[in-house]
Amino acid sequence: MEGYKIKFEPLGLTGHCRADESLLACAQSAGIGIISLCGGKGNCQSCKVQLVEGTFSKPTAQELKAYSRQEIKEGWRLACQTCPTSDGKVGIPSTSLTTTQRVQTEGQEIAVPPEPVVLPYQLKLKTPSLTDAQADADRVLKAINHQHKLRCDNIDIGALSQLAPQLRSWKWQCRASVREKELVAFGPWPSRQLGLAVDLGTSKISGYLVDLDSGQTLAVNGMSNPQISYGEDIISRIAYATQSAAKAAQLQRLVVKALNKLASELCTEVKAKVGDIVDSVLVGNTAMHHLLVGLPVKQLAVSPFVPTVSRALDIKASRLGLKFAPGAYLHLLPNIAAFVGADHTAVLLATLNGLPKETTVAIDIGTNTEVSLIDQDGITTTSCASGPAFEGWHIKDGMRAATGAIERLRIVNNKIQYQTIDDAPAIGICGSGILDTVAQLYLAGALGEGGKMDEKNRRVRRGEKHLEFVLVGNKEKKDVPRAIVITQQDVREIQLAKAAIRTGIQALLEANGYGEEKIKRVIIAGAFGTYIDVANAMAIGMLPTLPPERFQQVGNAAGTGARLALISRAKRAAAQKIVSGIKYIELAGVPGFSKTFMQASYLGKYRLKQGKREKIG
Amino acid sequence: MEGYKIKFEPLGLTGHCRADESLLACAQSAGIGIISLCGGKGNCQSCKVQLVEGTFSKPTAQELKAYSRQEIKEGWRLACQTCPTSDGKVGIPSTSLTTTQRVQTEGQEIAVPPEPVVLPYQLKLKTPSLTDAQADADRVLKAINHQHKLRCDNIDIGALSQLAPQLRSWKWQCRASVREKELVAFGPWPSRQLGLAVDLGTSKISGYLVDLDSGQTLAVNGMSNPQISYGEDIISRIAYATQSAAKAAQLQRLVVKALNKLASELCTEVKAKVGDIVDSVLVGNTAMHHLLVGLPVKQLAVSPFVPTVSRALDIKASRLGLKFAPGAYLHLLPNIAAFVGADHTAVLLATLNGLPKETTVAIDIGTNTEVSLIDQDGITTTSCASGPAFEGWHIKDGMRAATGAIERLRIVNNKIQYQTIDDAPAIGICGSGILDTVAQLYLAGALGEGGKMDEKNRRVRRGEKHLEFVLVGNKEKKDVPRAIVITQQDVREIQLAKAAIRTGIQALLEANGYGEEKIKRVIIAGAFGTYIDVANAMAIGMLPTLPPERFQQVGNAAGTGARLALISRAKRAAAQKIVSGIKYIELAGVPGFSKTFMQASYLGKYRLKQGKREKIG
Repeated sequence: MEGYKIKFEPLGLTGHCRADESLLACAQSAGIGIISLCGGKGNCQSCKVQLVEGTFSKPTAQELKAYSRQEIKEGWRLACQTCPTSDGKVGIPSTSLTTTQRVQTEGQEIAVPPEPVVLPYQLKLKTPSLTDAQADADRVLKAINHQHKLRCDNIDIGALSQLAPQLRSWKWQCRASVREKELVAFGPWPSRQLGLAVDLGTSKISGYLVDLDSGQTLAVNGMSNPQISYGEDIISRIAYATQSAAKAAQLQRLVVKALNKLASELCTEVKAKVGDIVDSVLVGNTAMHHLLVGLPVKQLAVSPFVPTVSRALDIKASRLGLKFAPGAYLHLLPNIAAFVGADHTAVLLATLNGLPKETTVAIDIGTNTEVSLIDQDGITTTSCASGPAFEGWHIKDGMRAATGAIERLRIVNNKIQYQTIDDAPAIGICGSGILDTVAQLYLAGALGEGGKMDEKNRRVRRGEKHLEFVLVGNKEKKDVPRAIVITQQDVREIQLAKAAIRTGIQALLEANGYGEEKIKRVIIAGAFGTYIDVANAMAIGMLPTLPPERFQQVGNAAGTGARLALISRAKRAAAQKIVSGIKYIELAGVPGFSKTFMQASYLGKYRLKQGKREKIG
Repeated sequence: MEGYKIKFEPLGLTGHCRADESLLACAQSAGIGIISLCGGKGNCQSCKVQLVEGTFSKPTAQELKAYSRQEIKEGWRLACQTCPTSDGKVGIPSTSLTTTQRVQTEGQEIAVPPEPVVLPYQLKLKTPSLTDAQADADRVLKAINHQHKLRCDNIDIGALSQLAPQLRSWKWQCRASVREKELVAFGPWPSRQLGLAVDLGTSKISGYLVDLDSGQTLAVNGMSNPQISYGEDIISRIAYATQSAAKAAQLQRLVVKALNKLASELCTEVKAKVGDIVDSVLVGNTAMHHLLVGLPVKQLAVSPFVPTVSRALDIKASRLGLKFAPGAYLHLLPNIAAFVGADHTAVLLATLNGLPKETTVAIDIGTNTEVSLIDQDGITTTSCASGPAFEGWHIKDGMRAATGAIERLRIVNNKIQYQTIDDAPAIGICGSGILDTVAQLYLAGALGEGGKMDEKNRRVRRGEKHLEFVLVGNKEKKDVPRAIVITQQDVREIQLAKAAIRTGIQALLEANGYGEEKIKRVIIAGAFGTYIDVANAMAIGMLPTLPPERFQQVGNAAGTGARLALISRAKRAAAQKIVSGIKYIELAGVPGFSKTFMQASYLGKYRLKQGKREKIG
């Protein structure tokens, strides 16, 4: 077959591209979903890519319109307009990837030298005899300390319980996995040590199986958090667990079972056993963290919002019912506050390398949104109840990011262009689509600054309770089963959600005496944060108006942080150090909070200052 | 009521004694069982007591016959011949106590300063607020380290799981129980810390509830080991456990359940909860030890007889299913060899205070008998398969020490005198009675040196298979349901059992190049060892012939050793030191073993030397 090999990064997938084929078509046939709202005509500018290696066709008129000269020079192109003329490499920014193809469990690449907490040692033992009937454990400890100059003084009792037959079948030679002064697992020599990193979210659990010795991620997988049947958001989950000890224990069992399943699937993928997992790290919000390890969550939800534990925990995985190597530990990164958990610690760990010279804001958007402001002097953190609107809740046609959800929407020349997940007929609208919609309606004049819908707009109709803007009519699109609308009430929900986030950012700026312009870098982490269109988020005032290059959408940085802590002892220490230095601000206790919140609910680009709003442009 | 108060030691019970009443009658009405074979006539000399305080009647002729002038001077008297003439205190040596009244769980008194591994600290905390929403755990750790200059860095996750509501109900003041750098339990302030010491025997479990802070034993209790339904002795227990992992787990569950029950009963007795137990120590033979903590036992029973672990273990009690304070540990004293367990370590710990100047032998008689020879140079230990004959197994009319068992027997003027447990009609004969019987028959000439029964004796008859000596005929004693006999085969069984013990002692002497006369002290530990008549044991050659004062029957020294390790950190270290210095001798590997064994099976008093037997007297 004639054509070229194109490697798409950061996915690492290679596509075969015919000479007359666009990069968009090539990527699509390789199974990579690049957003294409206009259907490859070059006018929606959603299929942005960056050429890294190789030669390509010259920029088209549409591309010259989409980019500055400098950007073209840097290799920025539209995938639908560009054809390769040699083998090459192309980078796809996460904003150009469609929902379903985005590997949320990936996050940033890891680049720290592996320095795991559990280390493998080769052990050679003498065979026992009537004149040397020393106990197995004593023999092993003596040998490892002698042969490797260690000071081990303990063998996990679970590991020990399997040792007698193992040593005999391995002919008195084995791998001992050592953690501090304790032997936590044994294996044949040579054999690899696996580690598991987990991001335990309220809705989703992501797992990463890692080769501890090389630091390489071997397999990645995600699943729903099965606790979701007992409360969609953190508060309702806490309410359920607080009803009785039995209910809390039930939630614990559910998630332990899920983690065992996830671990087992990951291991199967690389032909290993869960018993090969000798170390593990988990991050999650404080409530998920507490429920997993069996701590009460009641205090999290009542003033003054006190977690039972913040500091990092090391617990025998077996004590929680996790079926890893019997001696394996679960390391839980430190929490920051009742509503800022170890997952945010992991985000900071993954995205900071010491305190930055330039003022940085890190945001993890979810039902609860955590925001940190970091500069040379330290870290200030807050959390804001942004609510579930961005997950499609309390939105009339809202839905989770699943097949058929509108995930991208633009209004071009008064026409609505949109893209659904899996290109299926539209059945609803998910978080990123809702954000796009509100922004595009505001920019098109269908919504006022205060969020009021223009009832004179030809697409606005009176619904059962509220005015509603018809995004997709079932008359215009025959394959759409029913009209999809956004209501006045939906707009209000989004205003509240985005006001909470903006207020959180503002509170941190004011606590440090900074104006918005001082922010040199905005790190947006998490699933939703990765999918959003930053320009639209700025257009509705959810994010302060800053040059686009200051924003960085980093994917599941929490999972990356967990992996870093898994493979690096230094990173665990760094996480504890990060948390110890954090100043936490309880938003409810900030003076002028409600005034700021009210101003932040307005649409449009503006600056906030001491509870006042100053329009931009 | 006229009369005197007499305190009986070491039981601590007080009896009211009428002026004309003997100490025997007084003790009996106070529920204390003193042996009285002759029925209070002063001629069986079994009711020996020692007067400690007060005034008493003058010695009778029988007493002057029973004791030397020196002994009378030291207060030694016969309880049936002595009446008090004032309030007073009387010591009852354990040899004068009947089986059922002997508190086997008592053992020696403890006299070490309490120095527990878990220490209580008072903790005063600041109440959290919106401006100080520090996590409970972090608050507690910071406070304890600051207020008490400690370096704690961990709170047990189980203890932590109960902490939030506790701290709030205790108004932010509490007792923290600290073990090394870990907080293992919390309680209101002030509150006592309980500890549990356990001697886990193949047949019996003894438990001691201790106030950790004072070192005082608060309650003592014993129960059968429920595993007994799955094998009466260690070997059959091992065989059962080796059949499958499920069966081993079943044995583990059974004993964990029993330990929980024992702990719960002990706690109820002192109005406490099992959750108040913040530390525990357990001793047992190696098989019981391994089965409890879930280690395989297969290797224990096959050459070269290798335990999985010898060194001391510290395991979270909760990990084994023990329902103590969630953070409490179970400390298991070190094992010595496959058939010399932590119970023997405990015996040595309780009876030795460093290495003695004079050569000492310590014996713990059971189905398996452990023997140690200790001198200034160190400890040599062996174990011998003495079998279950002394527990009444494989003996025609043998039974356990229970109501109706003959426990003491003497032949005086050709008449058989005996005593049964609870003075009930005789229904069988238990270990100490069997030993008495063989010795008394030998001394009366009814058994030859080789153990052969004199068929011409008028009480010897031909039984179904063997000759048998009628101890109690159902014709002479109407309340005895059937005749009780000892058969030729029974005598053989006892010969094998006692030969094993004597061979063990001999092997140790020869390994050290000593003759028997070198032994200055013989410590006999354990239930059976406490009940035996040492003179009779010497008469049949089970023990070497030595002056009686060299023998010391110490009761359940294993339990005492466990208690010592529970209340004293130094004693735990001492136990590990004892075990590290022990030279273990595998009897099967000793040259000339069978020859010595054969000679040791003879009845009578003799010395053994290089496989030869030299009669004494």
